[in-house]
Order: sequence, then structure tokens, then C-alpha cells
Amino acid sequence: MIEHHHLLERIVRFALEEDLGSGDITTNTIVDSVTMGKAYLLAREKLVLAGLPVFKKVFSLIDPRIELEECFEEGEQVPKGSRICVLTGPLNSILQGERTAINFLQRMSGIATLTRQCVERVRSLGVRVLDTRKTAPGLRLLDKYAVRMGGGLNHRFGLFDGILIKDNHITAAGSITRAVELATKGGPHSLRIEVEVEDLAGAKEAMQAGADTIMLDNMDLRQMRKVVQFLKGRVMIEASGGINLETILDVAGTGVDFVSVGALTHSATAADLSLEILPVL
Amino acid sequence: MIEHHHLLERIVRFALEEDLGSGDITTNTIVDSVTMGKAYLLAREKLVLAGLPVFKKVFSLIDPRIELEECFEEGEQVPKGSRICVLTGPLNSILQGERTAINFLQRMSGIATLTRQCVERVRSLGVRVLDTRKTAPGLRLLDKYAVRMGGGLNHRFGLFDGILIKDNHITAAGSITRAVELATKGGPHSLRIEVEVEDLAGAKEAMQAGADTIMLDNMDLRQMRKVVQFLKGRVMIEASGGINLETILDVAGTGVDFVSVGALTHSATAADLSLEILPVL
Amino acid sequence: MIEHHHLLERIVRFALEEDLGSGDITTNTIVDSVTMGKAYLLAREKLVLAGLPVFKKVFSLIDPRIELEECFEEGEQVPKGSRICVLTGPLNSILQGERTAINFLQRMSGIATLTRQCVERVRSLGVRVLDTRKTAPGLRLLDKYAVRMGGGLNHRFGLFDGILIKDNHITAAGSITRAVELATKGGPHSLRIEVEVEDLAGAKEAMQAGADTIMLDNMDLRQMRKVVQFLKGRVMIEASGGINLETILDVAGTGVDFVSVGALTHSATAADLSLEILPVL
Amino acid sequence: MIEHHHLLERIVRFALEEDLGSGDITTNTIVDSVTMGKAYLLAREKLVLAGLPVFKKVFSLIDPRIELEECFEEGEQVPKGSRICVLTGPLNSILQGERTAINFLQRMSGIATLTRQCVERVRSLGVRVLDTRKTAPGLRLLDKYAVRMGGGLNHRFGLFDGILIKDNHITAAGSITRAVELATKGGPHSLRIEVEVEDLAGAKEAMQAGADTIMLDNMDLRQMRKVVQFLKGRVMIEASGGINLETILDVAGTGVDFVSVGALTHSATAADLSLEILPVL
Amino acid sequence: MIEHHHLLERIVRFALEEDLGSGDITTNTIVDSVTMGKAYLLAREKLVLAGLPVFKKVFSLIDPRIELEECFEEGEQVPKGSRICVLTGPLNSILQGERTAINFLQRMSGIATLTRQCVERVRSLGVRVLDTRKTAPGLRLLDKYAVRMGGGLNHRFGLFDGILIKDNHITAAGSITRAVELATKGGPHSLRIEVEVEDLAGAKEAMQAGADTIMLDNMDLRQMRKVVQFLKGRVMIEASGGINLETILDVAGTGVDFVSVGALTHSATAADLSLEILPVL
Amino acid sequence: MIEHHHLLERIVRFALEEDLGSGDITTNTIVDSVTMGKAYLLAREKLVLAGLPVFKKVFSLIDPRIELEECFEEGEQVPKGSRICVLTGPLNSILQGERTAINFLQRMSGIATLTRQCVERVRSLGVRVLDTRKTAPGLRLLDKYAVRMGGGLNHRFGLFDGILIKDNHITAAGSITRAVELATKGGPHSLRIEVEVEDLAGAKEAMQAGADTIMLDNMDLRQMRKVVQFLKGRVMIEASGGINLETILDVAGTGVDFVSVGALTHSATAADLSLEILPVL
Repeated sequence: MIEHHHLLERIVRFALEEDLGSGDITTNTIVDSVTMGKAYLLAREKLVLAGLPVFKKVFSLIDPRIELEECFEEGEQVPKGSRICVLTGPLNSILQGERTAINFLQRMSGIATLTRQCVERVRSLGVRVLDTRKTAPGLRLLDKYAVRMGGGLNHRFGLFDGILIKDNHITAAGSITRAVELATKGGPHSLRIEVEVEDLAGAKEAMQAGADTIMLDNMDLRQMRKVVQFLKGRVMIEASGGINLETILDVAGTGVDFVSVGALTHSATAADLSLEILPVL
Repeated sequence: MIEHHHLLERIVRFALEEDLGSGDITTNTIVDSVTMGKAYLLAREKLVLAGLPVFKKVFSLIDPRIELEECFEEGEQVPKGSRICVLTGPLNSILQGERTAINFLQRMSGIATLTRQCVERVRSLGVRVLDTRKTAPGLRLLDKYAVRMGGGLNHRFGLFDGILIKDNHITAAGSITRAVELATKGGPHSLRIEVEVEDLAGAKEAMQAGADTIMLDNMDLRQMRKVVQFLKGRVMIEASGGINLETILDVAGTGVDFVSVGALTHSATAADLSLEILPVL
Repeated sequence: MIEHHHLLERIVRFALEEDLGSGDITTNTIVDSVTMGKAYLLAREKLVLAGLPVFKKVFSLIDPRIELEECFEEGEQVPKGSRICVLTGPLNSILQGERTAINFLQRMSGIATLTRQCVERVRSLGVRVLDTRKTAPGLRLLDKYAVRMGGGLNHRFGLFDGILIKDNHITAAGSITRAVELATKGGPHSLRIEVEVEDLAGAKEAMQAGADTIMLDNMDLRQMRKVVQFLKGRVMIEASGGINLETILDVAGTGVDFVSVGALTHSATAADLSLEILPVL
Repeated sequence: MIEHHHLLERIVRFALEEDLGSGDITTNTIVDSVTMGKAYLLAREKLVLAGLPVFKKVFSLIDPRIELEECFEEGEQVPKGSRICVLTGPLNSILQGERTAINFLQRMSGIATLTRQCVERVRSLGVRVLDTRKTAPGLRLLDKYAVRMGGGLNHRFGLFDGILIKDNHITAAGSITRAVELATKGGPHSLRIEVEVEDLAGAKEAMQAGADTIMLDNMDLRQMRKVVQFLKGRVMIEASGGINLETILDVAGTGVDFVSVGALTHSATAADLSLEILPVL
Repeated sequence: MIEHHHLLERIVRFALEEDLGSGDITTNTIVDSVTMGKAYLLAREKLVLAGLPVFKKVFSLIDPRIELEECFEEGEQVPKGSRICVLTGPLNSILQGERTAINFLQRMSGIATLTRQCVERVRSLGVRVLDTRKTAPGLRLLDKYAVRMGGGLNHRFGLFDGILIKDNHITAAGSITRAVELATKGGPHSLRIEVEVEDLAGAKEAMQAGADTIMLDNMDLRQMRKVVQFLKGRVMIEASGGINLETILDVAGTGVDFVSVGALTHSATAADLSLEILPVL
Repeated sequence: MIEHHHLLERIVRFALEEDLGSGDITTNTIVDSVTMGKAYLLAREKLVLAGLPVFKKVFSLIDPRIELEECFEEGEQVPKGSRICVLTGPLNSILQGERTAINFLQRMSGIATLTRQCVERVRSLGVRVLDTRKTAPGLRLLDKYAVRMGGGLNHRFGLFDGILIKDNHITAAGSITRAVELATKGGPHSLRIEVEVEDLAGAKEAMQAGADTIMLDNMDLRQMRKVVQFLKGRVMIEASGGINLETILDVAGTGVDFVSVGALTHSATAADLSLEILPVL
């Protein structure tokens, strides 16, 4: 799906401009333009694969003659030491795309791998793992796609496709009730209304004001349990704030419907990948 | 310097488009356009500051009426709990820029903080810490700037401003000697020639062929010491490959001139920051 | 608000490029660059004003020295023969922006005027008037803004900020129930789910499947009343399909919550405006 | 011809970005990527067809696998109830392009249909129907193409490809004679000089000054006849100002060579079209 | 005028990106950001000045703090050794813009200087000197502006603002008469019709077909005189083809109205300029 | 290689937009869209060919159905009167691309031809001919490619891929020694350090400070010889400043390694080319 996305080409072009600039001097002076090459993309550690269509796009923009054969599918678990895909084409062109293509894939697979770990940890509880808007600037499309490949669910993409009333909105409006009222009246009826609350009183007010979803922001487990007890079954409940692989199971155990994890996209470790290239005689 | 850079505005605009899309529904329906706000950017952990000019640019593109007062300078160590800067302007506009601005700053300060740790660890040895091209696609300008703020030195920005002959180039050329010869003859004389080698024999050949810098790629410490012993004082020597905070001191101890660390830009943890906003009466 | 919107400048620039191309030959050869001018924007018919910030943007991009004084506010009813605003600046520059600026304003005020007429007609019933995605390609931001100025409510901006399950989605999924299930599971929880139905059976199934909103598509008044009777108070109800100024009151009278009108943006007549310009001695 | 035009792709891309944004949530969650679909574009009223190449471009940019078979040609009269064309391709992709593609076609065919009506009305008199620069901002290329498909003739495309001296230019120059002189001396000799006049005296002065074309601006029929009597055969004569389907025959009857009609592009009603889509088993 | 032109900023930005890329390493490492500088732009040869607004734009895009004081006006003759203008601002920023700014000015002043020489040579005959479309790709706006500053007249800017029927059009149409007929019927009435002919017969046919201008293409002087004798006073006459400073007077002497010279924009020698910079204490 | 370059398409698109604007009126009204044409590109003088891939790109962007058969290779010497290549495709499309395509090729071949002349003149001395940054703004990629096709060597592409310390940098730093020190410490180790000097003392200081290359700026031959005598074999030596075809041999004879010639790209005469087009029956 993402491979036909209208933003993808723009992102990949920009990344290529950034790396290639006025040209790959090393390759252009050393490697002729007729030698063909074959390359294996190697998983140097166990990972969840995400980003192959982007990886492919990089090479297709550099040289449409490069062909790629996939050995794994997006979202699949790849064992350490596996060949993820095989590239064939002009060696010169493969060398020019190598770093940019891997930069995308290592970031995206890193995110998918961390997401998968979170998802696995809370699977038995039926709780859904959400991402946030804490993504690398310019890469949100890809960061959020990687979360989906890891089994996570996307929260809103930006400020335009979801209503999330935070403390500052509440202060500006005067009260939770007034804020929900304003958003209901002025916002498109296609968007649900989510309210971020810090305690039980806030949760109650938000529910009564008509919120569809209530976000428990940075509460401790005891507080969460108390609020969940009250809200459960009446609205959707999301836990948020500093949650990580260590704490996610406890948070999910409070009975919330969703747990959102900023670290999925702002602090995942890059997957360890390398491209093993050989000239073809 | 970076605040006048011609790419910065393009990057920030793209990030804003990504987050704002057709508009911030929540803020637009709840917060009027005349209420003024004041906001403190809070360091929720100790960090090395990088990205304030980018943070500022985000808000200036949203609303030129927003003013920013800086409490720390770029590259400075910020203690946990400090106010990094103070924003004043229309509350509506501050809320629209909050997430995008922090997304930049948390990534950049995360990189600067990790870089500083690496730099501190090898400072006594006089070894320089380098970044790599393993950056987030589209953000290389900012990632590398953050490395400088952390005290690191930039390696080449892309494929266009440095010659780095890798194993695949050598295979394509037939030998190290031939590869260096081709690059010398065809490349601009403004670029030094660096050769990546895997053993002593390679290092010797590269040196004799006229390389300016020799990169020891993924060698163990014993190998490195042997090669350094041979090359020291004749060419510049760079160690590279899987180096991290734990191993950097040992690697630096082998006598190399530079250590390059991919993790600086591909796996730094985001700095923990938040914007505390208050309407102004 | 719209005047700081990130898309507005792009739209206005493109329109200016289209009209100015390689330059305004007539003005450049006849009018010197020092003569100042004063211009009155005249409403040649009664209208609801929308688009003044865009009108202003056109001139500010051509020449920042042009100043504009507003005599009416956005969304205000302007009597025939009124002066809407007064421009002062270099005559040369005013002449270059005249047509492009009016092209925006006449379209937007035309939309706002028609919207206001629809809104007035159903006001007593408390029914909300919605727009659709049937806008002029490239001008959706402005078309939908004009609808708001006319007193209408925006439906979703695009395919990304609302879930609207139409007949083709239902056929592809196999049933309404299955379609709603898939959207619930895969879509962001920030978006409501709206289902387009053609009869009572569809409406019942959609409601039971968990739809938040049900759209009655091209039903006759009798059908609508029957379906509304069933759904009222349980979900939000929207009427859609070929509704216009003549039929809107009857449709609203069936008890629906929203009426969406494509003609607001695809067939509004341009407001009749002219710019009366005088050189200043 | 228009399908190879360099601006077309830019316009279509922008319209697609506007509608697709971060993705079509409904379709992406409900319709898989392998199901094929077939779609008929239905004329729900009689119309003159214009915009098929643009309609096609929308789908080709979304998914090159979509194929389109045309049943009518551009500029042809299409009876109510006809199938205009048939689309085949991935259902998912067809659904994503549907609205944007129709938005173009309904506007363009609306313009062509109105133009054809005007052209038919004055055909027997040999008078040519012209458009104006009163187009939807950003869509001038397409609006003017639609006028040609309706049988109209294009007036200048922008301020760059024609000299049209209006009242303000005349005031700035001091006199018609001086204005024509300045334009003759400073403008490219490839452009004719047209002067807008309001009475017989103006027409005479313009003719004597060397105007190639004289535009009678907002004159009543009696005035026009008098001026035409004087100018006929010496220069080209264009009537302009508030002309519509009701008045065009009378205006043409005064003996002018051209009648320009702003309403063709600023107030045409959108053609009524729908896409009937079926999954293919 | 050109300084407000919508294309100018795009051209200058692109040129700056090309030169600055990822940054001016030399200046950034050596010159601090607080030292102020003063610079004189020196004419190292006699020249006609063109491009100062572009020169200024370069610096204003790099750093709005740079100020420029002009000593000569556009189009003015500058004696060898003169100071053309004085720049004051941060030294760092002046150094970054120096080369790009001069690259514009040396090209534009070179064109203006050559144009002035041609214009002077034929001035007594009242013949106008025209440019052609033989410009540096991407720089036509500036090349043609420079021609105007040199005293030349612009021919059409591109294929869109003039009708010029060449031999290939004639062959495709079947005859000159048919080609003129098609252009008259299908083209906007705002454009004159020019026909390129190679002999007297062609000239006669073109005139009778209704051409406004006739271009004598690559004729020898004898032929030209013969054709001019026939056409003079009935249509405008342009001579074209390989004309240069040496031949222009003879060509003008044949009685044509216009002489077009491709060399003005494709082969002018760059003006010799340098920027003398001093740090300010 | 250049045909896959990421900037090429952007440059060519911009040039096409500039020339085609709202469309080629002449061709569109006269030449139908089905007639095929054949065209020969004719060398009207002896030249070194450069730019064929760009020439090809122009036509491929206008109409992918145009085919091109090459009769000469890039960098090859083409005798006067030769056919450089043959185009076949829709006549309409060939006519639209003709001028833009030739504008690229005549500039690039002009540069290659002049470069070849310089190279030939100093070939026996083993001295390399360099270009400079004195290129046409926006065309540096192509100008420098043309220099390579002529047998020249590229100097740095911009300010980002080479360190060149000029007099102003030295003044700002306080001394040559300090400037070299700052660049060494702050600049990437991938870039060599070149210093521009004006006398022997400067050359000595630069060499001792560790410069890799020393540029002799505007020295007379005697000075150059003296400085070369001192530096030869210790650093690379480049001569620069006002060098042309007449003086290049003498300069090269002083023993320098490189001679850089600004005129290659700022003052080369366009190659004389024409496209002979015939409709195909």
C-alpha cells in the first residue's frame, strides 16, 4: 500500500538529494557504468521487517534497471543471519543507493521490532498498543507505517485527524465541559473527541461532557485502576506517559483499552543491517 | 549559523505540513486567537542542548509574533529540571507548534548528549569522535549539527564531499592500488582519499598507493594495534564499525586518530523534554 | 486563522504564477513604479464576505508596501454597493494583483453566500448544514473555510480525517457489519465511523454494527422519515444527495441532524465584485 | 494535447495530496489490495465532455495498473444516462481516486457545456465566444481548455501573453494615445494591443493610436451599435461585461467580432456525474 | 520591477542551494559570526550594469542584515575601475554569497554590455535590436531583463506569448496561407502572427495571408533589400540568423524594422567584476 | 551517468516550464497530434559534443514516444556538417522541445569545445585544466559535466566539498597559519585544505601550516616560477586568475600542477547547432 503513497516519493527523493548532492565521487571515478552487481541485504540481528517498499523505492529512483527479489514479507520476523532480499543491477547504481536505502530500513525495522515486543507483552490482555506524534520530523508516514507492521495501532496522524483536548486547551476554555462543548460544536462530526485527564474528577467530567475517549496522563497504577473502574465500558480509555517495555504490562493490567508509547518512534534502536555486494562477472 | 541555512526552512516546513495538515482542529475550535500564552521548555533530564534555532524556526514559521528567550546556549550542559527557554505569544499558535518543535529538539539534544558522553570518554587520549552517514533520512543537516554541538567532528556530509573507497570499490577496481589511482585521477583535488581496509596488508597497500586516511573497518583491538603501529604518523587513521559508549575507550586506546560511531545518529535516545504552557491573563 | 495557514501561501503563489507568468506587460510598459494608487473593493451585489485574508495575501506577496483597510469582517453580510475594503500602495503593484485577488474573493464569497442561504432556511429546525469533498481541485482549504464563514459546518477535509463507508466498501467487505468491524479494528480510534445506507435494513445493520453516524443517501422524504424514526437519538444522522436551496427545508424537516450539500462548493455563483482604482496625485 | 502538458501533473498531484493526505483510512482498512474493480462513469445529465485526460491522469498517478476505455471523445455531446468511460484496475486504487477525478471532470464539463450553449446561440452570426481571466485560481489551464472543448476561443492566458489597456492604465498614462504609444514602444512586437473603451470618443482615439483590438466595456446595446458602426472593418471589436446566456445573442447582434463571457469559468454549474463501481469476481 | 518578480526568488534560491549545499566549510570554520565586513563591488572593465536587484536578492536571502548601497543605476554605463555598490554586514554572510551574486551580475552585465554595443551601432537607423529564445536554460527571465537594460527590446518570452510560424509549421500545414489561417482561427486574438520566410515568394504569400510580422531568415543582404522593398510599410519586418556586432549595421541598413541577435544571450562574454572585502574593526 | 542524476530532471523541467509556459500556441494551432516527424541535429561548426543525455531528457519529458539515435558519443570531436543524432516521434512534440534542447546542447558543447582547446594546448606538459565556480547560476551540474567531457578536471562543486582559504579568510583569522589551523580542526578530515596566496612568503607560510594545495592567485609568470621552485614536490600547486587560451601554455610552463580557467564556463561561445525537421509521410 505504502509503495503507491503520494508522499513516499517526496521523502525518498529528499533523502537521496541529501546523500548524493552533486554526485557520488568515489563510485563515479572507480566503478564503470556497465559492470553488474548482486547484493544481499543481511539481517545481522533478529528483527521485524518494515520498510522494504521504501528500500525498493530508493533504488528504483536511482536506476530503474535495478531488480529486487524479496525473501521475507513486511511485518515478518526475520532470524539473525537471514538474507532479507537480493538486488541485481548496475553495480555503480547499487553502491549509490546503499546507505540511503539502509538508513530507511534500519530505522523502520527498529521501530517495528520494538513495537512487536510491546504488542507481544500485552497480547494476552487484549490491550492495543498505540504510537504517538513523537516521530522523526518528516518521517511520520514511515514511522507510523512501521508501527503497523510491528502490530501496533496508529493514533492520529497529526493535529488534523483527531481531537485531543489537553490541559492547555482545558485551561483556555475554562473547564473540561466547555472545551468538549466547543470541540463538539465547531469540529467535524467525523472526529471523535478525546480528553486528557489527570485525575478521577477530570475523567468524570469528561465522560459526562460527552468525550468518546479519555486519556489517563502520567497517572500511577493505583490511580489508573480507580479511574478505569469508573469509566470502563462507558468510554474508550487510553493510558499515556513515559510507558516502556518494562512498564507496559503493568499499565495494560489496569484495564485500559489502549496504551500509547512514545518511545516506539522516538527512541527505538536501529536494526543492524548490511548490504553484501558482489560484482557479477 | 544553522539558523540561516538554506535547507533548514525546507525541513521545518515539511515537518509542519506533516503535523498540521488541514489544520489543528482541537486548538482552532477551543482556543481563540487573541489569548496570549507563556511557555517554559523544561528539561526533564540532564542533557546537552542542541536544536534551539530549529525549535525557534518552527514557531517563527507558524506565527512571527511568538518571541523566545533563551536560558541556555547551544552545546551547553542543561541540568535536570532547568528551564531551557521561555516562549511568549498567541496561545493558539504556541499550541500548534509545540509537538513539532519538541520533536526536533528531543532528537537533536539526544544526539548531542550521546556524542558528549563519547567525547568525554576519550578526551584524555586526544582522539576525535566522528559521526557517519547513518542518519535519519531527510535530517542529516540537523543530525550532524547536533553532533558538533556535542563536541564531535563531522565526517563527510554525503557521497559528494569526500572520497571513501570501500571493499566493493576495491573489488570493482581490481585492487586497492588501482582504486586509489582512479580516484586520484578522476576526483577533484579538493577531496582527500580515504580507504577502508580489513587487515594489515590492505593498510600497507593503501598507504603506498597514496591514501590520505585509512579506515580500520570492524577490526578487533589486537589487529588495530598492529595496523596503527605501522601507519602511525604517516596517514590519518580512523576506526569504525559497531563502536559504542562501552567500547569506545578501548578502541581509542589503540592509537587511532578518529573513532566514528554510527549510533550517535541512528540510535540515540530522545532527550526528555516538555513544554509547560500557561495562558496569560 | 487562515492567514497563517501553511497551505495558503502555496495556493496563492501558484495562482499568481499562473496569472503573472513572465510579467504583466501592459502594466510594466505603461505604469511607472513610483505612482501610488488607492483602490476600493466594491460589492456589486449583496453578499456574505469570505476570503479577505486571501485577498490580502495576494497583494502582500506581490508588494509588501500595499496596505489594506477592512470595512467589513469575514462572515459579515455586505449590502450591495458597499466598499468592502480600501487598498493603498504602488499603482503598478495593485494592478498586477487585481484579477487574482478578486478571483479568490468572488469564489469564496459566492460559496459563503449560498451557504448562508441554506443555513438560514433550516435554522429554526436546529439542523446543521455540511459541505462535501466536491470542491474545486486545489482549493479545498479555501472552499471549506468559505463554508464556515457562511455558517456551515465542515464535513471531513479529505479521505484521511474521517471514515465514511460507502456502498463499494460494503460490497468489498461482504456486509455492512464486516465493513464496520474492519474499520473499527484497523482505523485510528480518533475517527468516528460513518456508514452510507440506502434503506432501513442497512440503517439497522449499521447501527447495530456500531456506526457513530449514518448517512441517508439519496432517499426520498418518506424513506428518510422512516429511517430517522428508527435511528433518532441512537446515532447521528446525515442526509445527502442532490440537496439544494429548494429542497433543503423539506429534507431537514425529516428530523436528520445534518444535511450535506455538494452544490455549496461545486456550483455556487461567483459574487459580483470590482476593484475601483485611482492613481493618487 | 493537454495530457502531455507540463502543468497538468503538478495540478493533479496537488489535488491528490489535498484529498489523500496521510491516506484513505476507510478504503485501506476495508478493501484489500488484490481485489480488482470495474467502474462506469455515468453522465447523469446531458453534457459536453471535457477533462477526460485529466480524469485519466488522476488514476494513473494513483496506480499505473488502472486502465481506462473511452466511450466518448473530448468535446463531444454526451446524452443523459450514457457511460462516458470504463475503468478497470485494483478496486482499492479506484476508490482512492474517485472523488478527485470526478471533481475535475464535473467542473470542466460544466464549463464546456455552458460554453457550447453560448457558442450555439451566436453561431449563425459568426461571432466568436471568448473566455476571460475570471477562472478558479490554480485551474486556469484546465478552465481554458474546457472552454476550447466547448467551442469557445481563449482570450489571453494571463497578464504575460496579451496587452490589454484598461481604464486605470489610461489614467496612469494620461491618455489613450499615450498608453498605446508606451505599450507599442516597450512591449514585445509579438503581442497585439487591445484597448478597453467606454464610449465612442475612446474608441476613436484608440483606433487612431494604433490599437489592434478594441473592447467595448459594459456598454448598452445602442452604444455598442454606434461604436461598431464606426470601427467595423478597421480593428477587431470585442464586447465584454456581464454578458450571459440570456443576453449574448443581442450583444452579438450589434456586429462585434468577439463576445467575452466571464461566467463561463466563474459561475458554470458542475456537470452531474457519478462513478458506478463494482468489484470483479 | 524585477525585484518583486515571482520567479526571481526561485532562481536565486536554486543557485544558492547549488553553491552552498551542506554549508560553506571554509568560512564556517574560519570566520566567526560576529565580525562585520564591508565590501566594494569593483568593475574591472567598462560595462553596462544589469542585475543589481538580483545581486541584492542573493545577499538578502543569505542574511537579511546585509545592507547594500548602490553607486550606479541599472542600465547605466560603468567606467572601468568604478565601485558599483558597497555592501555592509556580517563578514561570514558576505563571503557565503560572494560567488553566486557575482555569477549573476557578470552574466547579466555581459549581456547588457553587448546589447548596448549593438543598439548603439544601429541607433541612427531607428532599427530596434531584439533578443531571441537562445538563452541559458532557467535564466531567461534574467537574460531578457539584461537585454532591456542594454537598450534592446524583448522578442517573445517563450512559446506561449507569440505566434511564430517557422518552416516546419509551414510544411506541416501544407502552405504559408494555410498555416496563417490555422493560427488565426485557433490562436488567441491577443497574439500577433509572425511568419519566417526564406524568399520573396514566401514573404508575399505571408503578407497576403494576413501575417502581422515577417521574419527574413538567414537571407543575404541583396535578398533582404528586395523583400524589404516589397513589404515595407505593410507589415513589420524582422531580420534574423547569425547576426553579430560586425554585421548588424549592414543588416539594419536594408530597411528592416527589427534585427534579432541570438548571440546577445548565448555568447556574451561575462563582465569582469570582483568583490573587494574587508573586515570592519 | 549524468542521465540518472537527481538534479537533471529538476533543471530540465524548469527550463521547459520557462519556454512552454501555458503552451506552444503556434504548434498547437497548426500541427496536428498524429503527424510523425524525423529530425537531424546538425553541427554547423566543428565541436566537442557534450549534453546529449540532457538533450534527450528534454524530449523524453515532453513526449516519451520520441526516440533518439546517437551518431556520436559524448566527448567526441564532431566535424562541421555532421549529423549528431536523429530524432523520430510526433512532429508536434519535437517542435515543442527543439529550442530548449538546443539551448542546453549549444552551451554545453561550447564549454566542452573550449575546454578541449585548453587541454590540448597544455597536454605535453602534463598539467591538468580545472574549472571554477564561475558557472551560470542553476547550471553548475551541467557546466562542470561539460568540462569533464572536454577533458578538464573539476575543481570543487561548491562551498561544501572543498576548503579554499582566500585572502578574506586569512584577514579574518589573523594569519595564514591560524586560518589553516582553524580549518584543520573544524573541517571534515575528508577535505583537503587549499590556500590562495599572493607571494612567496604566503606560499611558504601556507606550506608550513600544512596546506595540501597552494593556489597562486593572479601572479605574473616570473613570480609563479619562483614560488613553484620552492613548493614543487611538497604540495599541489594551482595557478589561477584571468587565464585564457592565449596565456595558458605560458602559465602551465611555470611548473604548476593545475591551471584553473573561469572562462571555460562563464565566457564560452555557444556551439552552432540546428535541428533540421521533416514531417514523415
